[in-house]
Amino acid sequence: MDIGMIGLGKMGMNLVQNMRDHDIDVVAYDLNAAARTTVTEYGARAAASLKDLVAALAPPRTIWVMVPAGTPTEQTISTLAELLNPDDIVIDGGNSYYQDSRRRAAALTAQGIHFFDAGTSGGMAGARQNGNFMIGGEADVFPRIAPLFQAIAETDGYLYTGPAGSGHFLKMVHNGIEYGMMQAIGEGFEVLAKSGYDYDNAAVAKMWNHGSVIRSWLMELAQNAFSTDPELSAIKGVMHSSGEGAWTVEEAIRLHVPTPAISAALMARYRSEEPDAMTGKVVAALRNQFGGHAVDPQ
Amino acid sequence: MDIGMIGLGKMGMNLVQNMRDHDIDVVAYDLNAAARTTVTEYGARAAASLKDLVAALAPPRTIWVMVPAGTPTEQTISTLAELLNPDDIVIDGGNSYYQDSRRRAAALTAQGIHFFDAGTSGGMAGARQNGNFMIGGEADVFPRIAPLFQAIAETDGYLYTGPAGSGHFLKMVHNGIEYGMMQAIGEGFEVLAKSGYDYDNAAVAKMWNHGSVIRSWLMELAQNAFSTDPELSAIKGVMHSSGEGAWTVEEAIRLHVPTPAISAALMARYRSEEPDAMTGKVVAALRNQFGGHAVDPQ
Amino acid sequence: MDIGMIGLGKMGMNLVQNMRDHDIDVVAYDLNAAARTTVTEYGARAAASLKDLVAALAPPRTIWVMVPAGTPTEQTISTLAELLNPDDIVIDGGNSYYQDSRRRAAALTAQGIHFFDAGTSGGMAGARQNGNFMIGGEADVFPRIAPLFQAIAETDGYLYTGPAGSGHFLKMVHNGIEYGMMQAIGEGFEVLAKSGYDYDNAAVAKMWNHGSVIRSWLMELAQNAFSTDPELSAIKGVMHSSGEGAWTVEEAIRLHVPTPAISAALMARYRSEEPDAMTGKVVAALRNQFGGHAVDPQ
Amino acid sequence: MDIGMIGLGKMGMNLVQNMRDHDIDVVAYDLNAAARTTVTEYGARAAASLKDLVAALAPPRTIWVMVPAGTPTEQTISTLAELLNPDDIVIDGGNSYYQDSRRRAAALTAQGIHFFDAGTSGGMAGARQNGNFMIGGEADVFPRIAPLFQAIAETDGYLYTGPAGSGHFLKMVHNGIEYGMMQAIGEGFEVLAKSGYDYDNAAVAKMWNHGSVIRSWLMELAQNAFSTDPELSAIKGVMHSSGEGAWTVEEAIRLHVPTPAISAALMARYRSEEPDAMTGKVVAALRNQFGGHAVDPQ
Repeated sequence: MDIGMIGLGKMGMNLVQNMRDHDIDVVAYDLNAAARTTVTEYGARAAASLKDLVAALAPPRTIWVMVPAGTPTEQTISTLAELLNPDDIVIDGGNSYYQDSRRRAAALTAQGIHFFDAGTSGGMAGARQNGNFMIGGEADVFPRIAPLFQAIAETDGYLYTGPAGSGHFLKMVHNGIEYGMMQAIGEGFEVLAKSGYDYDNAAVAKMWNHGSVIRSWLMELAQNAFSTDPELSAIKGVMHSSGEGAWTVEEAIRLHVPTPAISAALMARYRSEEPDAMTGKVVAALRNQFGGHAVDPQ
Repeated sequence: MDIGMIGLGKMGMNLVQNMRDHDIDVVAYDLNAAARTTVTEYGARAAASLKDLVAALAPPRTIWVMVPAGTPTEQTISTLAELLNPDDIVIDGGNSYYQDSRRRAAALTAQGIHFFDAGTSGGMAGARQNGNFMIGGEADVFPRIAPLFQAIAETDGYLYTGPAGSGHFLKMVHNGIEYGMMQAIGEGFEVLAKSGYDYDNAAVAKMWNHGSVIRSWLMELAQNAFSTDPELSAIKGVMHSSGEGAWTVEEAIRLHVPTPAISAALMARYRSEEPDAMTGKVVAALRNQFGGHAVDPQ
Repeated sequence: MDIGMIGLGKMGMNLVQNMRDHDIDVVAYDLNAAARTTVTEYGARAAASLKDLVAALAPPRTIWVMVPAGTPTEQTISTLAELLNPDDIVIDGGNSYYQDSRRRAAALTAQGIHFFDAGTSGGMAGARQNGNFMIGGEADVFPRIAPLFQAIAETDGYLYTGPAGSGHFLKMVHNGIEYGMMQAIGEGFEVLAKSGYDYDNAAVAKMWNHGSVIRSWLMELAQNAFSTDPELSAIKGVMHSSGEGAWTVEEAIRLHVPTPAISAALMARYRSEEPDAMTGKVVAALRNQFGGHAVDPQ
Repeated sequence: MDIGMIGLGKMGMNLVQNMRDHDIDVVAYDLNAAARTTVTEYGARAAASLKDLVAALAPPRTIWVMVPAGTPTEQTISTLAELLNPDDIVIDGGNSYYQDSRRRAAALTAQGIHFFDAGTSGGMAGARQNGNFMIGGEADVFPRIAPLFQAIAETDGYLYTGPAGSGHFLKMVHNGIEYGMMQAIGEGFEVLAKSGYDYDNAAVAKMWNHGSVIRSWLMELAQNAFSTDPELSAIKGVMHSSGEGAWTVEEAIRLHVPTPAISAALMARYRSEEPDAMTGKVVAALRNQFGGHAVDPQ
């Protein structure tokens, strides 16, 4: 089996190593020359351009795109559409919006090129080995790429999910659940921090990971984080987001699905990005207006 | 009609003036000597102590307690219980917890003293004139104090609500609704502030107060606040709270009533009190653990 | 002043009467023939088609479109674009999505036609008299239509809000605030209903509307509703929605504005549309799995 | 090692078997005679009364109370207080409110009896083997009972958490996190159910449990539940609760910790208990009042 890998960032580089561990031949490309050099150390061949990458693979080809969602993915797939032949396969392993994946699938299919959207979970560690993949695309073509996922995924850790779009949709929902779980875990530790008891956060997380109802990989990661910095005092509580939690809520709105916990988690993220908030100013001003309650001056 | 007033803070002093406007004789007491002097300028008599205040009123007496909820109210009513006679009336006009009012009513009633819990709304302006009152206590005794409320309340602005506790319970829920309304208004103006449009907040609030569905006294107060400080840039968005929103949510929990919006408003208040939050640190640390996402250093 | 009115539904028909009260000549059109007849009883002229409506007005024309948002508005404005002349004015008084209004403004402006998006609040009663309007469009053209709003709006009840789109954006946020306010009011009355006290909902709402902090038009409407049906026992608690609350949350997401209360209100609406919910099934099943807690069978 | 076990319900009976597997002698009591018979089949001795149970153990005794929180626990521990000797140990393994545990610890300590609050997680399966325990009480007495937990807990699955109350406090927070996680998982599957894609819920849960970021025991339980009933069509989505999520939110309120996701999860549970809701009726009535929007009749 050989495969083309486009994008050698945190995820792509780990995936290449994962594939090489399973004797998959990889031709890799990245805009960054240093990354192209590094990848050869893992036993992959580097291509100097998308064109070279395509040329280095014998048709019918399988090409994995692992670049940031949005414009980079759009441009990469557009370029591939010009370079590839019918019956070639494009896998988008990034965090693309599922509607984009549907659109791209339709466009490529019109050219006879096959498209799969492969939502990828498990973080960098999962990309490196035992990853988790949810894959949408043509059912009758999927068997061609199943061995690839069989190799790089954890046992039982990949699923063919239905037509194109269904893989990225499922990954989006996965991340929505993740937002809710992470927020709940965070809230719990904040209650502990203010409880007046003197809990050892790392010890608590470790104990919870051994037999409790809330044992989970996220709690293991919490254990790791607290082991290094017991009160997380080195970092600020700013919760950035890359979009999939937001998409989940937008989709819930479209479908009229009540998602109060995931929405609350999303709103908490936005609140964390603000040092101060207009909402609070308005409420403080109103309290002052009707009740003479003191406001905090700037 | 004569009445004893205990507590000459923001609310009590305004209530005295309101009563004096309606030719109600007032004997007033406050721990603060300056307040006792001031109140005489409004035509009230000052008493030097609770004992003096009780002595200055002919039985059966009506005494209005307007001191902070909790210990001050508890101590005041306990002292009154020792000084008063059967058939005297105690009105708690403060923001007491309704269960405390039930307990106090039971204790006073055992002595033949009547107790009314009078939730008071309308802010300082309402205390000064045209106030709003929700009053629980003995139905057959209420007619004795109805003329008082007839005088100081806005027309139709008072209500006998049922047995003792029902007045403060209703005031508690009133404040819960207020929390939700204020938070919604605040959120709306924050969306405007970040919209990219250049709205004039005061003009918007003024226009909304003239014919829109959301016209309300709170929006009028927003108009006032924005008129003085168009972006509320002088104040911080810290939303303090004095407890009744919290009680509303606690009561909702007890009754299994879903109150997602009021709860969200309450949680937003607590979040505004924190410059940084442990929840955010945990989520940021987890994102870093699984995805290598950058954290914001302290 | 004369104006063309397209759409004679609940809002449009009331607006025509409002305009007629102020001696504004109206040429009106609706797909429904009966509505075209009715409108003549209010002193408007009926047009048999959009073409006839345009022909019946002398240029430069002012045409108010008051049809449902989405396809009906799109089609109406597209047709008008073919029929109108440069310097004519189109006012969209409906609940269009502000991005649609921006797009339509750009398209019409390219033809020299002026476009205003006039968010309309105050309900049917406001359409009938003393309405509330937030109007975006070209600043230098607005004076041509200001007298119209001066006539039909409540005093101080209209505002020029900025470029095209800003009117509908503001109306969207208005509705978002409305969602939060309504949900908070509803939650409060549900706490009352389950409190064990025997509150008279209509009396409570009436009292709150006379001097309390939460006095508002929405509370007046609650008073009306409870006066007719004291426990609202004739209706189901299904909260439909027409989209603007959803747009507010979507916009908040786009702008990273935390709107927890408005979001909670929106989610409560969706939940109310479900007789049963998959979320609940999953949680019930999980509780059963780990703790043997009983589930409710179908 | 020998131990007294009071309460042979779902949890207690499993704990007895767990202890017996580790050669711990157990004297057991339950109000229910059949349970007392059953327990002997697992190699425990049955006591006919609390008095007999105490008599059957040599001092200093260790007695585990595993009865429902509230009155049953209160009565059991009160009775034990009369029967036990100084230096005996009482372990409350139930879901008691942590403030009750603090109070009981103080009362027993005054008699020289030691009290430990042992929050127990892991469900029935964990009680049976490899349980999870968070234990508060006197630090210098804990070594006496550590071997017991070493035996019945999963490796690293128990933690001494600090003074009495800290164990049940931590278990309370554990359950709060659990509420948030479960709600997020439920919401995710509801989005899937309405997505228009045809996901196999059991297959999705299984795949997510093999390498994804959200892999967790709760997701494994979801996999189990969906394997039996793919759409959970046999059960209603009513989410009952036994109190600890509610306590977590109440504690968060007391500490001013924002817990929006856990609160949202709690409110969703209460909403699920209602076939219809007053909140919805109010909002529907208001929409009808201002906009003429149709209401759903009963």
